[in-house]
Amino acid sequence: MSRIAVGIEYHGAAFSGWQALPGRLTVQSELERALSAVAAHAVTVTAAGRTDAGVHAVQQIAHFDSDAPRSPHAWLLGTNAQLTPDLALRWVRAVDTRFHARHSALRRHYRYLIHNHRARSALVHARAGWWPQPLDATAMHVAAQALLGEHDFSSFRDSQCQSPTPMRRLDAIHVRRHGEFVVVDVTGNAFLHHMVRNIVGTLVVVGLGKQPPCWVAEVLAARDRNAAGMTAPAAGLYFVGPEYPAEFALPAPPAFVFPPV
Amino acid sequence: MSRIAVGIEYHGAAFSGWQALPGRLTVQSELERALSAVAAHAVTVTAAGRTDAGVHAVQQIAHFDSDAPRSPHAWLLGTNAQLTPDLALRWVRAVDTRFHARHSALRRHYRYLIHNHRARSALVHARAGWWPQPLDATAMHVAAQALLGEHDFSSFRDSQCQSPTPMRRLDAIHVRRHGEFVVVDVTGNAFLHHMVRNIVGTLVVVGLGKQPPCWVAEVLAARDRNAAGMTAPAAGLYFVGPEYPAEFALPAPPAFVFPPV
Repeated sequence: MSRIAVGIEYHGAAFSGWQALPGRLTVQSELERALSAVAAHAVTVTAAGRTDAGVHAVQQIAHFDSDAPRSPHAWLLGTNAQLTPDLALRWVRAVDTRFHARHSALRRHYRYLIHNHRARSALVHARAGWWPQPLDATAMHVAAQALLGEHDFSSFRDSQCQSPTPMRRLDAIHVRRHGEFVVVDVTGNAFLHHMVRNIVGTLVVVGLGKQPPCWVAEVLAARDRNAAGMTAPAAGLYFVGPEYPAEFALPAPPAFVFPPV
Repeated sequence: MSRIAVGIEYHGAAFSGWQALPGRLTVQSELERALSAVAAHAVTVTAAGRTDAGVHAVQQIAHFDSDAPRSPHAWLLGTNAQLTPDLALRWVRAVDTRFHARHSALRRHYRYLIHNHRARSALVHARAGWWPQPLDATAMHVAAQALLGEHDFSSFRDSQCQSPTPMRRLDAIHVRRHGEFVVVDVTGNAFLHHMVRNIVGTLVVVGLGKQPPCWVAEVLAARDRNAAGMTAPAAGLYFVGPEYPAEFALPAPPAFVFPPV
């Protein structure tokens, strides 16, 4: 039995999230259907991160076990031929059996895209959160730095979150303006349910000038979901990818490969 | 009666092109329906360029006449509320009655986006043409320069083209690689039917190494559609926008404002 890792890209609007659910079209169920057809046996996949409904992935990584004699290229072409256009394998690699897509991940990268213009965009519909009022990206960036390090992130945790602990480590957070867009890049060891979207919803309160940047430190200290801002829409969130120890020799999280500016 | 100019963005996959056709969902018919509802009288729009089915617009420009007492902001909000998510007004301006969206245009800018990777992309599905074999963007760029200037573009003209003349002036053409993408930017006074897509299909023949760069000059000189390459898929083509004399004070073709890299 060999272990295989795959890089997966998807447009979130087409799916009820990652996790297989009876009667729902999910990324996991579609992927397992396609891989099982190519393998000619039932395949179960485990992902680096279970994204919510509407959330996109630039490079989700998952693993599965199979003894089917297929080359990486045969897995790639065969599986992609079985998948709908909104879901694709981008690469396939044989990996050491010690590799586990979820447990081996050292860090995870997310990007949140805000379209910040009073007129909505037709081309980024379902690909960005939309705020028509002007946002101060510099104030949002300054405010966000209070979240760096290891903290109890209860203020940014959804009530449905099943993690045994609210402790997480945030390694980097950058907010910058790019024309009509405000881009929020977040890196951490792992994330609570809705954590990135709740952080963005809170930074937007600062960006709108309704609270000063120092307010975010107060929100964090409160350890109370009611202290923070709204949950930003799923449409703006991209799982850019997980990072693994170098020994597994897997591709790094990609430079964001959207249509170029 | 006052004349109003609008900047329009759309995702082409949702429409059977620009021009109103009985029984088809087109950009023009949707826009006229929405503007007429806001105006409370029948509105007819004239566009800078009539894009084909599947072709996108970053900034199509159109004009219409109305004596409805609406501010530009009221036109914008009211019309966008009537439109589907794939179509949006980005700005509205009162203009001199001498302005004509089609006849006043000096030049038009198009961009063609090629996704060039052996694995298809889920996020750019219906937003780029896909070529899995490696393309030499430098060779394509060199080849393209033969098309600059005023020429008989019969070799790049669709058989359905209704223009009285095959003469057009190409002002600039740039081909460059950007990660997994090859981007073709084209500027000219005007374009024949399928002209940009036929140019791209011809440059791809060079990019694949099937013809040397100097072949494109031969294709142009042949004045024969059979001499050129295939018509590149509509999904990769973006009408970036028209340019007008400065006296009309209209927004320039935008920097490409897609989700930033």
